[in-house]
Amino acid sequence: MPSAIPTPQQRTAWLQRAAALAKVPEVLAITPTALVQPVMDASAWQGWRMERCGDPGELAGRLMRSGAEVHLDLGEHRVGQIELDLGSVGKPPDSPLRLRLRLSELPAEAAEAYRPPGGVLSHAWYQDEVVTVDELPCTLRFPRRLAGRWLSLVVVAGGSWDLVVRGIRFLAVTGAAHALPPAPAGLPPRLAAIDQISLRTLRDCLQTVFEDGPKRDRRLWTGDLRLQLLANGVSFRSTALAERSLCLLAAFTRESDGAFPACCFERPEPHAAADIITDYLLALPALLRELLRQGGDRELVRSLAPLARHQIGLALGWLGADGAIVPPAGWWTFIDWKDGLDRRAPLHGVLCWALDAWLGLAATLGLDAGDDVATLARLRSAGHAAFCRTPSPSWAAAAWMVLGGVVIGDEARRLLLATLDDPAAVTPGGPYLMHHAVHALCLVGERARATALIDSYWGGMVERGADVFWEVYDPAEPRRSPYGDFRLNSACHAWSCTPSWFLRDPEAATRPS
Amino acid sequence: MPSAIPTPQQRTAWLQRAAALAKVPEVLAITPTALVQPVMDASAWQGWRMERCGDPGELAGRLMRSGAEVHLDLGEHRVGQIELDLGSVGKPPDSPLRLRLRLSELPAEAAEAYRPPGGVLSHAWYQDEVVTVDELPCTLRFPRRLAGRWLSLVVVAGGSWDLVVRGIRFLAVTGAAHALPPAPAGLPPRLAAIDQISLRTLRDCLQTVFEDGPKRDRRLWTGDLRLQLLANGVSFRSTALAERSLCLLAAFTRESDGAFPACCFERPEPHAAADIITDYLLALPALLRELLRQGGDRELVRSLAPLARHQIGLALGWLGADGAIVPPAGWWTFIDWKDGLDRRAPLHGVLCWALDAWLGLAATLGLDAGDDVATLARLRSAGHAAFCRTPSPSWAAAAWMVLGGVVIGDEARRLLLATLDDPAAVTPGGPYLMHHAVHALCLVGERARATALIDSYWGGMVERGADVFWEVYDPAEPRRSPYGDFRLNSACHAWSCTPSWFLRDPEAATRPS
Repeated sequence: MPSAIPTPQQRTAWLQRAAALAKVPEVLAITPTALVQPVMDASAWQGWRMERCGDPGELAGRLMRSGAEVHLDLGEHRVGQIELDLGSVGKPPDSPLRLRLRLSELPAEAAEAYRPPGGVLSHAWYQDEVVTVDELPCTLRFPRRLAGRWLSLVVVAGGSWDLVVRGIRFLAVTGAAHALPPAPAGLPPRLAAIDQISLRTLRDCLQTVFEDGPKRDRRLWTGDLRLQLLANGVSFRSTALAERSLCLLAAFTRESDGAFPACCFERPEPHAAADIITDYLLALPALLRELLRQGGDRELVRSLAPLARHQIGLALGWLGADGAIVPPAGWWTFIDWKDGLDRRAPLHGVLCWALDAWLGLAATLGLDAGDDVATLARLRSAGHAAFCRTPSPSWAAAAWMVLGGVVIGDEARRLLLATLDDPAAVTPGGPYLMHHAVHALCLVGERARATALIDSYWGGMVERGADVFWEVYDPAEPRRSPYGDFRLNSACHAWSCTPSWFLRDPEAATRPS
Repeated sequence: MPSAIPTPQQRTAWLQRAAALAKVPEVLAITPTALVQPVMDASAWQGWRMERCGDPGELAGRLMRSGAEVHLDLGEHRVGQIELDLGSVGKPPDSPLRLRLRLSELPAEAAEAYRPPGGVLSHAWYQDEVVTVDELPCTLRFPRRLAGRWLSLVVVAGGSWDLVVRGIRFLAVTGAAHALPPAPAGLPPRLAAIDQISLRTLRDCLQTVFEDGPKRDRRLWTGDLRLQLLANGVSFRSTALAERSLCLLAAFTRESDGAFPACCFERPEPHAAADIITDYLLALPALLRELLRQGGDRELVRSLAPLARHQIGLALGWLGADGAIVPPAGWWTFIDWKDGLDRRAPLHGVLCWALDAWLGLAATLGLDAGDDVATLARLRSAGHAAFCRTPSPSWAAAAWMVLGGVVIGDEARRLLLATLDDPAAVTPGGPYLMHHAVHALCLVGERARATALIDSYWGGMVERGADVFWEVYDPAEPRRSPYGDFRLNSACHAWSCTPSWFLRDPEAATRPS
């Protein structure tokens, strides 16, 4: 059997295919809807809310000197470039002008920009830019692509004349469509809101590839792509960009062992990242199965199928003496942002789910699956013995036991509910795992409870002012950040966009995806 | 007699002429000559000197993370844009990069950039810029035009990977020529150095107009233009740009009274500044006379001649009962950066000098000068009575009495030397007046003393490390600034470039110019 590790020729072909599928994002010039002011409010999310304090048209009459600051509302979260028409009144400007521009996703981010940078990620992620303008009047298009809703302008250094901001445009971009597909008729208002916010999240993450978050990391991740693809299939149907994203990732399959990458970089030229995540590489079979379901190119999927099976082969090398998986040392197993989570059972569930997806894919494509049906039965049996004798210690384990078919039928329902009702069970740290819990509930027939979970978790973000869904949401800890500074969190994050999939295609969630 | 205040048609014609004379600056890519480090040194000018610490080629091997800082020497003062080739080593960059770029004219400016901004001018004059880079590798051309010799790079926010600066180019621009005309053969080395530094100063001020200083104000001023034109005539001979500069200024003659502007703005479209300076508007006749001498367009000069005479008419309205001038209240009379200077005698000298220049111009162009010969005689006589009975109280008064022909011959020589030798006389505050003192010495036949003054004043800057001549130089007060912060001073300033005129055409300085 030939190696499934892609040859240089295959990689080149995928890169060429990715380039051919590139699409210039659609640009829409939008104008702010209000002048706002951050107001400290202990009852507001993260301690701040935005209060409307004027019409944006008032700005053109406001005279600004050094130290002047204004905040504007773009009306909704957007991704794009800021363009300003700057002028002056009074004596002609006889010095340059230095402006600080900031785009914030959340009110607290705008309000607390004065705090020194913190956290473990590069401080260049703060969308806080300074620009010097030599000539007025001018139209200044700020070069960086930014993401957020709240635009702040500060005159760092003016002169003895008055600056006037005569116009502000935000050149919004998306690889999807600017107008969101309307919520399905008959959906209760709160769920309809959740649907629209999910799709806005997807719209803003969908650029020239499926990004995880348009503020941070602005990058194509396999795990996010899989969840986005579900929501995409019931909304924007940007199949070409999904194919492009897959081709880019596939081209950067690790040469040493054929591990499918967790992410890659698109610019300035597509290039590899170093990250490999066990549960992300195992997402490839399901990604391909879903792409086929959405009418993706059959030949492309066929060319990627051996690579999908290869990932399962890698994972089969990680089995312990009991036939259950042991997360390999030195590899990153994600599952959830949760310190101390036992990832053994969840990863075993992921492997079973991946093998099941592969079998479905092989059947659709007419590929020879060899002994894989038997292998899956063996894995499920070993997983059941190892992890399903008692209620799972975590939502992660329970959800993935169900998604992997390690438990089925009424036993699956009982295991899942017992875990979700167990106050000692480890709860999800973020939306990525929450999605899998909701999906598992659908699989065991607990549709109402699944909807209630969407309503309480994603609806909780809505109550707290979200107009896109967040990377990190813990109602008990508003400033929680995996990065040491809440201002580094991404507030518009791909892996939070799946409620639309559950709400728009309830049938789909009754099978593994 | 028709009004000499330009009609709208005349203004439009001058603007069209200015546009037609515009020239794209010549671009030369240069590379730094050394890695340097600012070293605190009480014996150095302003307390800092630059010490060579490496070859610029070493930079490509230096791994930089947050906080890393490097300083480079461009080899000489230059004006232009910074272009960097940025790359990385180690894992692929997974975050943006934030860089601070600073170009400094003097070592202390580079070394003390950390001090909070001060002074009365816009802090946007500090050439301290921050840029965020989203993609690596990249070639980053920094958009602002900057001026200076010392380039500092600081990694404000890097990542967990290593930044490498693989290349640095400075895209130098000038409206003159990059190569300086060599110093005249036979000039002693110190004077040869002064000549070259003068021409470098002129080269870097000469852009799309004659600027006062390429760092600050980056603007066309009538007084600076006049001195630059002298040095230009013996070096780059950029007559077209001088004509362009004159046309721009003339187009913005004040509508209410026909006062010739002290300055105007070139960009984004030519527009008026509010400044009028009595001794600058009186420079117009001499400017035109000099332009004719350098072969400037005779018809253009003829079209401007009535405006030149109009300035004298304005000043004749400022005479007191004794027939000597009284600097008009509410107008700015410059003469020198010197608080408390009595500007009456100097301004009277300026008026006589202007009228003399007008008479020369009228004779050359065959224009009717009316009673102006008699008027000049009357003015000189009144000035002599008012200001020349005793040694002048200031270098300014003495120099302008001589330049205006208010005193002549041996009396002029005695008056000037007595003032320059009088420890109680008010000395020049800067190079603009120092030029006139040197010129007055030449006029009274004290050539050796004039050269000695060039040698001590401009040579003093050379001793202190100047490679362009400064806007402000007071050996007794290294951090002196008219703007409250020495870092706001312009170190490459047009009005300091005239030693080349004295050194290259000694004959010319024996007549008023």
